[in-house]
Amino acid sequence: MAIPDEDFHPVATGQAAKTVEAHQAPQDVVFYAGWFCPFVQRVWITLEERGIPYQYQEINPYKREAHFLEINPKGLVPAIEHKGRGLYESLVLCEFLEDAFPDPTNEPHLLPADPIDRGHARIWVDYAAKVVVPAHSRLIQAQGAERQRAALEEYYAALRTFAAQIRGPWFLGEQFSLVDVALAPWMVRDWVVAEHRGFSRAAVGNGWKEYVDRLERRESIVKTTSERQHLEVIYGRYLRDEAQSEQAKAIRAGKTF
Amino acid sequence: MAIPDEDFHPVATGQAAKTVEAHQAPQDVVFYAGWFCPFVQRVWITLEERGIPYQYQEINPYKREAHFLEINPKGLVPAIEHKGRGLYESLVLCEFLEDAFPDPTNEPHLLPADPIDRGHARIWVDYAAKVVVPAHSRLIQAQGAERQRAALEEYYAALRTFAAQIRGPWFLGEQFSLVDVALAPWMVRDWVVAEHRGFSRAAVGNGWKEYVDRLERRESIVKTTSERQHLEVIYGRYLRDEAQSEQAKAIRAGKTF
Ligand SMILES: N[C@@H](CCC(=O)N[C@@H](CS)C(=O)NCC(=O)O)C(=O)O
Ligand SMILES: N[C@@H](CCC(=O)N[C@@H](CS)C(=O)NCC(=O)O)C(=O)O
Repeated sequence: MAIPDEDFHPVATGQAAKTVEAHQAPQDVVFYAGWFCPFVQRVWITLEERGIPYQYQEINPYKREAHFLEINPKGLVPAIEHKGRGLYESLVLCEFLEDAFPDPTNEPHLLPADPIDRGHARIWVDYAAKVVVPAHSRLIQAQGAERQRAALEEYYAALRTFAAQIRGPWFLGEQFSLVDVALAPWMVRDWVVAEHRGFSRAAVGNGWKEYVDRLERRESIVKTTSERQHLEVIYGRYLRDEAQSEQAKAIRAGKTF
Repeated sequence: MAIPDEDFHPVATGQAAKTVEAHQAPQDVVFYAGWFCPFVQRVWITLEERGIPYQYQEINPYKREAHFLEINPKGLVPAIEHKGRGLYESLVLCEFLEDAFPDPTNEPHLLPADPIDRGHARIWVDYAAKVVVPAHSRLIQAQGAERQRAALEEYYAALRTFAAQIRGPWFLGEQFSLVDVALAPWMVRDWVVAEHRGFSRAAVGNGWKEYVDRLERRESIVKTTSERQHLEVIYGRYLRDEAQSEQAKAIRAGKTF
């Protein structure tokens, strides 16, 4: 029997399909991606923002192919191969792209130059990863009205803490940064929780709706977003808590991911 | 009534007391520390390894003083004030010290120069923080023989995954790095789990005992370690699962920290 996560639309659609099409030629950076994956989108946004040349390679992480497992033994997307060497974990990859392409022509940088400001950014990247994303996953997978209500409250609380720190127009102010990137893929998928869990951008308060509306219009985000209808199929499994991905299992077991 | 965590030996002892004594003069880096805290020790080891001038300032994080809350609104140690600006979170601080003191005279650096190697290091720093440290905390706080046995197995499994990647003598090979630093404070306190939870270094296998013995002799670690007897009082509360710190509460609630 096929495990449910193996079987879904195989390639990017809409705007993202055009971006994939434009990145087929061999490059030093091979980007192993899944069009649907929010962790992948973090790295994809970074590549686009910084104008780094890359070759897009679609991977179905649920069919663990041998070459891919050499690049990422955990078998997860995103991963990058750079001049024959592999690396993985979305936020590690974003930092890698800062370190490996320091060239000022690859502007804008996604981390501030000042060391204290960089540290401040990393605190909030970490908050996005450790607090907001797990709260979002728990909300999606929550079953039953009572648990869904509790998960929605927890999610609003996580977003409000974040929202209170936004300087505008982006998290750090004028500079679009890794803090925005770390969270954006989940925020632009919030129609899932709006339709199925009663979430509303406006209910977060503190300029949240305006901030996410702005993210949704950012070119790097538009260019890496596929059509909703194909994502809906995937989210359906999560919403019924039937998904068998590593993340779905971890959240079900009460762990973060 | 005093909360139990407020009331313990107030200052560093043994070798660490000498190090504190030697770092009283004002410096650009003010290091807000608690002598007992393993998260603090990560930053302290980094400062010592890199020869960065710093002023040591003992803080009791359980008595939230106003100036300290300006530096770290979360009220946790470690924190750093650099030329009047504050930063916190132990691993963010270690990265800050790399960024703010790039000078080659502040050798050795704790992250490799090659971007892929840096990424590899960050993957394992993250593993130490997200997998090993929480497993260690769960083991300490586990109550009852059955849960303690399960927590010990989980802890061994976490260490074995890490041990299998050690190149020797240090995690990355010849370079002592942030990966070693991220884990060392818990490893040199493993007498607590040896005495109370049946842990044995040798039982981890894969050269683990030799690796931790080596950590224990590293100068920066020796110089930042206080006497056991005072730590024992603090760990007693965790071992009975009576501690009221943010970490203890999070672990009790089944969350990571
Ligand atoms: N912590 C990883 C998570 C990556 C991840 O979970 N990717 C998913 C797709 S969204 C995956 O590859 N799943 C395959 C599986 O769970 O077996 C990161 O930040 O890159
Ligand atoms: N994630 C933080 C954890 C720091 C932490 O938990 N520090 C403890 C002392 S070991 C503390 O300040 N506790 C005060 C409290 O829990 O109220 C880091 O890595 O710096």
